[in-house]
Amino acid sequence: MLTVVSPEEVFEIIEKNFTKINDAEEVNLTDAVGRTLAEDIIANEYIPSFDRSAMDGYAVLASDTFGCSDSIPAILRLKGRIQMGECLELNVSSGSCYYVPTGGAIPSGADAVVMIEYTEDYGDGTIGILKPAAKGSNYVFKGDDVKPGQAIISKGKKLYSAEIGSLASLGISRVKVYRKPVVGIISTGDELVDITKTPLPGQVRNINSSTLISVALEAGALYKDYGIIEDDEDLIAKTLVKATDECDLVLMSGGSSAGDKDNAAKIIEGLGQLYFHGIAVKPGKPTMLGVVNGKAVFGIAGHPGGAYFISNVFVKALINKLSGQSESAAKRTAVLSEAVSSNHGRAQYIAVKLEQTDDKLIAHPIISKSGLITNLAGADAYIYIGRDCEGLAKGSLVEVTNVI
Amino acid sequence: MLTVVSPEEVFEIIEKNFTKINDAEEVNLTDAVGRTLAEDIIANEYIPSFDRSAMDGYAVLASDTFGCSDSIPAILRLKGRIQMGECLELNVSSGSCYYVPTGGAIPSGADAVVMIEYTEDYGDGTIGILKPAAKGSNYVFKGDDVKPGQAIISKGKKLYSAEIGSLASLGISRVKVYRKPVVGIISTGDELVDITKTPLPGQVRNINSSTLISVALEAGALYKDYGIIEDDEDLIAKTLVKATDECDLVLMSGGSSAGDKDNAAKIIEGLGQLYFHGIAVKPGKPTMLGVVNGKAVFGIAGHPGGAYFISNVFVKALINKLSGQSESAAKRTAVLSEAVSSNHGRAQYIAVKLEQTDDKLIAHPIISKSGLITNLAGADAYIYIGRDCEGLAKGSLVEVTNVI
Repeated sequence: MLTVVSPEEVFEIIEKNFTKINDAEEVNLTDAVGRTLAEDIIANEYIPSFDRSAMDGYAVLASDTFGCSDSIPAILRLKGRIQMGECLELNVSSGSCYYVPTGGAIPSGADAVVMIEYTEDYGDGTIGILKPAAKGSNYVFKGDDVKPGQAIISKGKKLYSAEIGSLASLGISRVKVYRKPVVGIISTGDELVDITKTPLPGQVRNINSSTLISVALEAGALYKDYGIIEDDEDLIAKTLVKATDECDLVLMSGGSSAGDKDNAAKIIEGLGQLYFHGIAVKPGKPTMLGVVNGKAVFGIAGHPGGAYFISNVFVKALINKLSGQSESAAKRTAVLSEAVSSNHGRAQYIAVKLEQTDDKLIAHPIISKSGLITNLAGADAYIYIGRDCEGLAKGSLVEVTNVI
Repeated sequence: MLTVVSPEEVFEIIEKNFTKINDAEEVNLTDAVGRTLAEDIIANEYIPSFDRSAMDGYAVLASDTFGCSDSIPAILRLKGRIQMGECLELNVSSGSCYYVPTGGAIPSGADAVVMIEYTEDYGDGTIGILKPAAKGSNYVFKGDDVKPGQAIISKGKKLYSAEIGSLASLGISRVKVYRKPVVGIISTGDELVDITKTPLPGQVRNINSSTLISVALEAGALYKDYGIIEDDEDLIAKTLVKATDECDLVLMSGGSSAGDKDNAAKIIEGLGQLYFHGIAVKPGKPTMLGVVNGKAVFGIAGHPGGAYFISNVFVKALINKLSGQSESAAKRTAVLSEAVSSNHGRAQYIAVKLEQTDDKLIAHPIISKSGLITNLAGADAYIYIGRDCEGLAKGSLVEVTNVI
C-alpha cells in the first residue's frame, strides 16, 4: 500500500533528512556566476582605498568658498590637474585648488570638491568658485564602502553580477563554491523506446529522461544518464546501487504506481529506506522518496505530465537543499483567466501561461485531458490548488510560481 | 554635450535599431535547455499514438456494466492481462474483459476502462465489475494530446523542461536554436589595475569587466574579454574596431563621463553613429549607445555601481533582443521596509534585498553613500523611482524587478 503524504510533508522530509554537499571547489571569479559561495567573504582592505572625488570639479578648502556667489566668486589659484590613477604628493593650501576628475584622488589639505558646473575657468591660472561648498561635499572617503574585517558575502549566497563585482572590488580572483550536485537519471519500463525511435504500437518514447535532465540543469546540477533499464528487478537494483555510488541524488522514472511490474518501492526498501510512497497531489501522486547508499532516491511515475510537476516542485527543492542554497522560486500574484474546477480532495498543480497586460498579470491555465507533457510547452509557471479548495472562479487572484 | 534620453527612450531605441541574430545552430535536445528555439515545431504524428488506459483496470464494453453495483456485480470473463509495451491483436467482446495497466494499450472492441478499485477478481477467471462505466471513461484516445500538423512550440521560445519534454515526446532529439550572442568587453582607464593586483594610491581595480562578464553570462550570452586598455584614443579605437568585428555587442566601460580624457563618445562617433549620450537616471547617467561596424556599442561609465544597474537593466534588454527572446525579467510587488528619499528630477534605480514573510514580500533598500558595488552584494532585485516621484514612504507598495 502507498504511504501517502501531503506536499507540505514532502518539503519537511527533504528539509529534515538531507543536508547540503559540503565539498567545495575553487574556481575563477567569472566561472562562479550562478554558483553557491562556500566561504564567508571578509574584507581585508579599505574601499575606496583613498579619498576620491564623486564629481568632476575642483578640490578646495571649504573655508575658502564661504560667502561666494555668482556675482562675488571666490578666486582660487589653479595648482594643477589631477589625472586618473595619479596620486602625487600634492597639497591644497588656502587660496589654491586642484582640478580632480570623478573618481580621482583628492590631494591632501582639501576638504571639499566643487562641481565643475559651479565654477568658471578664467584661463589665466585662476578659477572662480560660484557657490559655497560644505566640508566633505562631493567627497568619497577612504573606507566609505568597506572597512577591513567587514563581512561582505556569507557562505551559501548564490553569486550573480553584484556579488561577482563586489568580489572583484576586493581583489578576489578565485573563489570557493560548492561542488554542483550530480543527479543520476534512470528510466525503467519495457514499453520505453529511445526518443530517436518511432514507437511500435504499445510503446512510448522515453520522454522523462529529457525532462529530468532539463530540471537538473535548470537547478544548476550536473547529470549522469543511465538510459532505459528494462523491467527486471535485479537489473534495476544493480543500476540503482551504481547510480547512488556515482551520484548525489538519483531519479528513477517509471515503476512507481501500484500496477503490475511496478517494483521500485520494493527495490528501494530492499536496498535502503523509503520515507513515503505517494503524494496527495495531482498529477504525480505515485511518487516516492527514499535513501539508498546514503543518497536520496526519488521514484517518479512514468506519466510525463506528473514527472514534469514532481521534478519542478520537489526535485528542484531537494537539489537546492543539496546545493546549500535556500532561495526559492519567484512567486507572483496573477489573475486567473478562466475558472478551474476542483479536484475533490486532492491537491493539484496546474500549469499556466502568463500574460502581462498594462495593469495586470494574467494566468491562463493549461488544461490537458490526458495530462501528457506536450500541451505544457510554453508553461511559464504553475498554480497550486489545495485539497480543500472547491475550485477557482474566473478572475480569482492566484499565486503563481515560476518554473525556472 | 550629452544628448540625454529617458530610460523609456533607451528601450525604444534598442527595440527600433537592433534585431535578433538570425544564425541558428543545431544542438542535442538536452543541450538546448535555456536556449532560444530557432524553428517552429509542428507535430507530424499522433500523441498518444494508440488508445491507452488512464488507470490500472479492466478494458470492457461499457454496455456490459450498465446497472451493475456492489451487490449485483457484472461478471466478465478475464481474457488476459495486457503488458506495458505490448499491443497484440486482441479483442474485447461482450461478456469479456482484459486487464490493462496505466498507459497500456486498450484492446480493440473495448470502449471503457473500469478502475481496479471498482472490481473484484474472483480468482476463477472471472472479474466482478462493481460500478457502471460510461463510454470512454479512463480512456486516453490516440491523438488526444497532439495531432499531425498541430503547432507545438513557436520560434523564439526559450526552452525549459516543459518544452524539452514535449520535443522528446515528438521524437525530436536535435533542435535548432539561435546562436548565443557574443559580448565583447573593453575596460578603459589609466587608473585601472587587474583585480589580482593591489592598487597603488590613485589606482582602482578593474571591477567592471567582472560585473559585465557576469551580466553577459546571466543573459545567456558568450563573452570575449579585451582586458584593460589605456586611455589612448587610437588604441581604444583600434580595439573597438576589432571587438565589433569579432562580437555581436561591445561594452566599453570607463571613459563615458564628461571629464578629462573621456573620449568614448568621440571614438564611437568617429567610427559609427551615437544614438544618445546620457540617460536621465541615477546611477549610470553617463551611458551612451551607438553602432560601429553594424554592431551595438554601449559606453558605460567607470563607476561600478552605475555599471551594475546599466548592465542589468539596459544591456540585458539588448542581449535579449539580439537573442530573439522577448521574455522580460520577473516583476513582483513588495512592501518597502524604509522610506526612500526623492532625487529631485532624476529617475533612480535602488537595489533591494527581498525578504519573504508569511504574508508579504518585503523590499529592504540598499543605500550606499558612494554607490560603489560592494554594498550591492546580496541584492535580489531593484526598484525604479520615476523622476516625478517625490520619494517613497515606509510601507509603500513598490514593483521590484529581479536581477536574474
